[in-house]
Amino acid sequence: MGKGTGPIIGLMDYMGKGYKLDVRLESDTIFLCSLFLCDVLLMNEKQVPWFILVPRVKDAVELFDLSEENRGLVFEESIFIAEKIKSHYRCEKINIAVLGNMVRQLHIHIIGRHSADPAWPNPVWGNLISQKYSEQEYVFLKNELQELFKA
Amino acid sequence: MGKGTGPIIGLMDYMGKGYKLDVRLESDTIFLCSLFLCDVLLMNEKQVPWFILVPRVKDAVELFDLSEENRGLVFEESIFIAEKIKSHYRCEKINIAVLGNMVRQLHIHIIGRHSADPAWPNPVWGNLISQKYSEQEYVFLKNELQELFKA
Repeated sequence: MGKGTGPIIGLMDYMGKGYKLDVRLESDTIFLCSLFLCDVLLMNEKQVPWFILVPRVKDAVELFDLSEENRGLVFEESIFIAEKIKSHYRCEKINIAVLGNMVRQLHIHIIGRHSADPAWPNPVWGNLISQKYSEQEYVFLKNELQELFKA
Repeated sequence: MGKGTGPIIGLMDYMGKGYKLDVRLESDTIFLCSLFLCDVLLMNEKQVPWFILVPRVKDAVELFDLSEENRGLVFEESIFIAEKIKSHYRCEKINIAVLGNMVRQLHIHIIGRHSADPAWPNPVWGNLISQKYSEQEYVFLKNELQELFKA
């Protein structure tokens, strides 16, 4: 499920010239909304609330590839999403990570963790057997999460 | 190896009242230096350059537990260390993560990754069979890294 049909909500859109979402990120995620700098994606993995922020900046790989202003925005928007999901899902811990060993495009994982989730207390990567959302779950979640992330 | 004997270098020290390093972090790492807000520790794992930043703030667990000023400092200091290690170790990618499912005290992993390292392209957690530094390697590295991290 791609970005095509989603409404743009929240802060005004910040269009990155020449920016294009990596194909692997596009196929693994569901588009939720655009914040000022980052697109917010939901990982298609129903066992944990797993979000990905992608700054709409062409060719960014590391956080320090961004301008100082954009670094600040990425950080602010990550904290914004992290706080929202912590309280919404009553998470015990939020995991935030910039890895990118496989997908070069700069993206930030923000994952709500709970001691009852199947990967706990390990990180999620490599410790979950994929369970995707159904189309029905996705439609419901998309509405719910777009509401949640309204600034 | 604990913090006891290390010199305080870099920016002026920012002493957190009541702050104490978690015992597990203390036993897994080697103290390198203090930045303005964070202590910089080297994970005792010689297969990858793996650093941990710990803000000297009592009871902090999530990034959003910090004041806005301290959040900014943690972010700045993380970027500072990430850039230094990327160029020093000629890393292909920097991994930055705030997990804390096992150790509650807020700490930031900053790890230099290379396609030749034994965990690549996976994250390091759970994908390395521990190899510790020798005392000799540690003394050499401590000097070298304290030089590198001089602001």
